[in-house]
Amino acid sequence: MNAQLPTGSTAIVYCEGQFGAQDGKTANGLVRHSEKYEILSVIDSRRAGADAGEFLDGAANGIPVLTDLASAIAHAGRVPDYLICGVAPADGLLSQPQRVVLLDGIARGMHIINGLHEFLSDDVEFEAAALLSGVTITDIRRPREKKDLHLFSGRIEAVTCPRIAVLGTDGAIGKRTTATLVVQALVARGIRAVMVGTGQTTIIQGGRYGVALDALVPQFCSGEVENQVVAAFDGEDPDVIIVEGQGALSHPAYLTSAHILRGSRPAGVIVQHAPRRRVLGDFPMVAMPTLESEIALIEAFAATKVIGVTVNHEGMSDVEIDDAIDDIELAHGVPATDPLTRPLDRLVDMVVQSFPDLAVRAAARPTAPTRPLHLR
Amino acid sequence: MNAQLPTGSTAIVYCEGQFGAQDGKTANGLVRHSEKYEILSVIDSRRAGADAGEFLDGAANGIPVLTDLASAIAHAGRVPDYLICGVAPADGLLSQPQRVVLLDGIARGMHIINGLHEFLSDDVEFEAAALLSGVTITDIRRPREKKDLHLFSGRIEAVTCPRIAVLGTDGAIGKRTTATLVVQALVARGIRAVMVGTGQTTIIQGGRYGVALDALVPQFCSGEVENQVVAAFDGEDPDVIIVEGQGALSHPAYLTSAHILRGSRPAGVIVQHAPRRRVLGDFPMVAMPTLESEIALIEAFAATKVIGVTVNHEGMSDVEIDDAIDDIELAHGVPATDPLTRPLDRLVDMVVQSFPDLAVRAAARPTAPTRPLHLR
Repeated sequence: MNAQLPTGSTAIVYCEGQFGAQDGKTANGLVRHSEKYEILSVIDSRRAGADAGEFLDGAANGIPVLTDLASAIAHAGRVPDYLICGVAPADGLLSQPQRVVLLDGIARGMHIINGLHEFLSDDVEFEAAALLSGVTITDIRRPREKKDLHLFSGRIEAVTCPRIAVLGTDGAIGKRTTATLVVQALVARGIRAVMVGTGQTTIIQGGRYGVALDALVPQFCSGEVENQVVAAFDGEDPDVIIVEGQGALSHPAYLTSAHILRGSRPAGVIVQHAPRRRVLGDFPMVAMPTLESEIALIEAFAATKVIGVTVNHEGMSDVEIDDAIDDIELAHGVPATDPLTRPLDRLVDMVVQSFPDLAVRAAARPTAPTRPLHLR
Repeated sequence: MNAQLPTGSTAIVYCEGQFGAQDGKTANGLVRHSEKYEILSVIDSRRAGADAGEFLDGAANGIPVLTDLASAIAHAGRVPDYLICGVAPADGLLSQPQRVVLLDGIARGMHIINGLHEFLSDDVEFEAAALLSGVTITDIRRPREKKDLHLFSGRIEAVTCPRIAVLGTDGAIGKRTTATLVVQALVARGIRAVMVGTGQTTIIQGGRYGVALDALVPQFCSGEVENQVVAAFDGEDPDVIIVEGQGALSHPAYLTSAHILRGSRPAGVIVQHAPRRRVLGDFPMVAMPTLESEIALIEAFAATKVIGVTVNHEGMSDVEIDDAIDDIELAHGVPATDPLTRPLDRLVDMVVQSFPDLAVRAAARPTAPTRPLHLR
């Protein structure tokens, strides 16, 4: 953890009934990594009393999980600046009890950050409440005006550094977390890496380059990814760009990885996989794809190569993780690791094995950056 | 042509500067086939004086191309019911001169049908004008409320008749026209075929089953296709469902064929291809894919098989069309035809060769339908 406290705004993350679960992925992401807000606590009465980091990843981070909004404000000692809606139901709509909590936060003077498909600033009740309390409602997923969106332009061909996309075999499987860790690990080894996000969580977390693809109509998706990659290249002069994937190319519904591959044209792909997951998280009537079929699909769909596999260790013991890593390396002939429990250097080795020039460039550089580029 | 005149509403199609071109594909489609409106004329001053059918397909259909709105109304003898905006610029936005024509139509008392991404009923100037004239503005692409949209559900597994998707190697290449002709040809041979549309033109044309995918956020695309296929199956008890494709699976931007394949799970795919097209219509910096690469991509992306190829004859003589058909059949081992210039029976043969049960069922049926099922 960074010893220096963030100087930004304070926030409580509301995630009742979902913290640690797939549906709570926005909250899970914010607890692991937030550049824009100081996260004070998480609300989920089922997990109250736990340390959020300990609960998620087995390493305490001092962010408590609390029962309700009142106890979260009491813990903060004052009303924090923001209440972040960290639930993410599959249909994108708030339930009545969830609405009550957010309206209570507004009444207490908290700004709302909403990552749902449902736009709260279009909701008359929320609009009126925010007006009365003098707070703002930010709907992260609200797309920009169509005239400000980008169609694919071909400008990606002018991006001379390699892109690596982190795709996966399902949604909510750890692609964003792995992409974030890849960037951190590369930067720690002196390689100038920058991330391009493609989901609302990455944008809530404060990433500088990114677009919430699931808020766009399809025709702009690849162009908006291309535009963010070009912006990251022009803005940061990076050695490599890491692109966050979405869903899975084999998925019955979450298919924007298709646009991500077309828009970013990655030279390499890392595939995040959960060996113990048997059916898709949001679509339990569909069996998980095999790693073999997903790798074949990715390499057939785009002119790219899978350079490594990262393991989501859900439901696995430490020994089982080791076995899974060995099995994957043997079966698929690419490096594998679990980014959350194994040394981050393995992620760097995975990347450098396929892109040796990155290590050469870093070694030749007199002074290495020590933080991700977009935080300078 | 049908000897019986349509009894529906009358309409003028506005397509200045684009009739016959790729960008005018909504107008082109309406001139070829309209179930909902009687198309009286097309406006495009560049082509004024031509017969629209003669100009498009070499067979007169009695729909004149006229200079402007005033002459189109004079030709009609009265103000028609609808002015259909049949331009389709890549960025989806109207130019100032285009706005003036539509506002003029409103002032004259015509309802507006708009297939653009830009929603005219959100435009203050259009809203006020429509209110003053007492006419309606219908934005075909406006999506339904999110709560009314369908996520993928797996209900497609209960659809026991085969689906055939008509995909292609580019956008605006003839997929919709071919799909329409396949349905007509199958029905003429006693096979109960029904079409599921996926674009705004098919919906403007009056198809009963369909969804404008390019107006949806990505996560609902495959579920909405699935829902329309299930509705067509439940509503029509068809022998086969023909699904309109969009763009191309290899396309840098128009990728909703990915959702169409996942949502409809077709057993067979027909690929529409223009042998003389060298670069993508809307993206001239991208070379056309080869038929070989597109077929391989489709068959890698989904558990399906390409059963035939249909030729878009742009830029080809009759002899060249014959040569292209022969070349394709030889190279790819599937039937090929040009639906617009060759007998429609060849489309039926293409389908029946891969789905012989369809012919068996049709032969065993005492009375055959004579019109597409959704028009009964």
